Amino acid sequence: MRELTVDLGERSYPIYIGEGILDQVGELFIKHKLSNASPLLLVTDSNVAKFHLEPVVKKIQEAGYKVATHVVAAGEKSKSLSVLEEVVATALEAGLDRKSSVIALGGGVVGDLAGFVAASYMRGVRFIQIPTTILAHDSSVGGKVAVNHPLAKNIIGAFHQPEMVIYDTATLKTLPDRDVREGLSEMIKHGLIWDAGFTAWLEENAEKLVSLDQEALQYGLYEGCKVKAYVVSQDETENGLRAILNLGHTIGHALEAVASYNELHHGEAISIGMVGAAKLAVKLGNPEHIYTVTKRILQKFGLPTRLPAHLDTDEIMRAMMHDKKFQEGTMVFIIPTEIGKVEINKSVSAADVREVVEQLKQEA
Amino acid sequence: MRELTVDLGERSYPIYIGEGILDQVGELFIKHKLSNASPLLLVTDSNVAKFHLEPVVKKIQEAGYKVATHVVAAGEKSKSLSVLEEVVATALEAGLDRKSSVIALGGGVVGDLAGFVAASYMRGVRFIQIPTTILAHDSSVGGKVAVNHPLAKNIIGAFHQPEMVIYDTATLKTLPDRDVREGLSEMIKHGLIWDAGFTAWLEENAEKLVSLDQEALQYGLYEGCKVKAYVVSQDETENGLRAILNLGHTIGHALEAVASYNELHHGEAISIGMVGAAKLAVKLGNPEHIYTVTKRILQKFGLPTRLPAHLDTDEIMRAMMHDKKFQEGTMVFIIPTEIGKVEINKSVSAADVREVVEQLKQEA
Repeated sequence: MRELTVDLGERSYPIYIGEGILDQVGELFIKHKLSNASPLLLVTDSNVAKFHLEPVVKKIQEAGYKVATHVVAAGEKSKSLSVLEEVVATALEAGLDRKSSVIALGGGVVGDLAGFVAASYMRGVRFIQIPTTILAHDSSVGGKVAVNHPLAKNIIGAFHQPEMVIYDTATLKTLPDRDVREGLSEMIKHGLIWDAGFTAWLEENAEKLVSLDQEALQYGLYEGCKVKAYVVSQDETENGLRAILNLGHTIGHALEAVASYNELHHGEAISIGMVGAAKLAVKLGNPEHIYTVTKRILQKFGLPTRLPAHLDTDEIMRAMMHDKKFQEGTMVFIIPTEIGKVEINKSVSAADVREVVEQLKQEA
Repeated sequence: MRELTVDLGERSYPIYIGEGILDQVGELFIKHKLSNASPLLLVTDSNVAKFHLEPVVKKIQEAGYKVATHVVAAGEKSKSLSVLEEVVATALEAGLDRKSSVIALGGGVVGDLAGFVAASYMRGVRFIQIPTTILAHDSSVGGKVAVNHPLAKNIIGAFHQPEMVIYDTATLKTLPDRDVREGLSEMIKHGLIWDAGFTAWLEENAEKLVSLDQEALQYGLYEGCKVKAYVVSQDETENGLRAILNLGHTIGHALEAVASYNELHHGEAISIGMVGAAKLAVKLGNPEHIYTVTKRILQKFGLPTRLPAHLDTDEIMRAMMHDKKFQEGTMVFIIPTEIGKVEINKSVSAADVREVVEQLKQEA
């Protein structure tokens, strides 16, 4: 089992990564001194429940814990205040108190929802992340939790750090291929913003990663989480450095808002967004190879690099202007200045962005 | 203008108390460096809006700020997730960003609701409390914010400290007499838990306070806030000492759950709860005068000390068992051991509590 620490003073916590480590979930709870006098609540979704709910609950119970469960519908729609209210009802009926913990078993949606339940139930209880997707190696680390509002994604939330992250790479074997690839998109982002060596390793190991080679996967998740953990430890509540994690996300979020979910998953939108950021970088005078290398890597992972031509540029621009990463009217973009290096550029002109959006529709 | 600091390290903030100080709201915003590049959102209720919304908005605008407003229906029902969603819609439409502030103009309901909006909007923006009731001298200090769930009060919330509390005692002149008295109930609580001298002053000045003598009111609010501020500074997130602020609240909350709102307002339920706590105290061997003095003071303020006989004891007991102040099955009570002194007693027997509840129905 690999172990990594997210260093946040008294809120520090470990990330455990390994194949089959969910067998030890009960021991890990005991090690972390979760109270067995207070019931736990495990939140998962209908897809994950099919494969993992029963064995995980059994292991938790065998370790002497009472655990209630709440299964939400799979998909983004469950990240709503009304589903939050339902989960809280389950928590109340199960008698969760201030010493209870909420466990997220699943991907980003479950983690964000259960995390905001943990952040807000009785003004905050302990929280445990058990990610079951590759994409969640990003969302499960760093304490950002939220639900959506009909008018904006992730707009109601909190910073609430987990007690631990338990990453069992065996659970990834049940992921559809498309989910594997989109998850690797965030892993590539972690390379591109911080670590040229890791980025090169990713390119070399694209095939192994896509085919879920366990050794490659564990190393990739470990390194990806390491970048995320370091950045978060420097800037827990996104006042500065943490913004670099948004590479590809300004355009990416706008694409998600404008395209149908089936057309573009999060990691795919981010992939196109990273190509856009690389193009902007070159336009701003950074070396041309930033664009060619970024695009080449993403294509090796079978990720999209072209913006679907039928998406309306005006709509995309409007969606960007509502993005919460705009502060006081200034347009903020994360711009790569080298492979493995980015800067926070607060004065990117909307005209340049519009041009890049148009060009992204012409990409090979 | 009186000024008091809630000492919480980098989250410290001032409480300003004075008659007519809302005239200076704009200057105070500038003094606290609120960004005028980001819009503000002021939340209030339909009752308060009638008297104070227009002049306050005007003063804020005169200081160079853009301010959106959201008026909720007066009353506890507005402390819901669905109203929160509506307020967030207003915030999004007004373009609030991470440097914006949310302002609560009103009593406890508005403060709790707007405070949770501030705590969760974009994972937290700045928050300003402008209390317009006496009761809110308690709720506006200390950073506890929350909305209700259909199954439990204040169960979804956060600890989110305001930037400042602006207490204009002129606004209290529009309060109905019943609201004045119930607000003073929490002021008496602050005396009873911490300060025998202040408690004696309260008894002597009951008439002045009830008739809203501005000098007495300002002194009482200052001293009441001082107790609250000290306790909160010692224990921001209620891990220990802060629990003493719950004197009278265990029984009080149960009464609120069981009685109709019109029958018992919060401060009235707390009044009966404080008599109950005093009776429990005597039962546990503390001096008899704790009970006689507590009751005498509350009666001087015209606050109820008898539990309405038609309320069902079983229901009251059940409501208490759901109270979130029960940890791991232990029944926690705040017990006065002297006037101005309390202890956190974690092993009060349910049988004793039931007996006291029955006796409270026989009180004079």
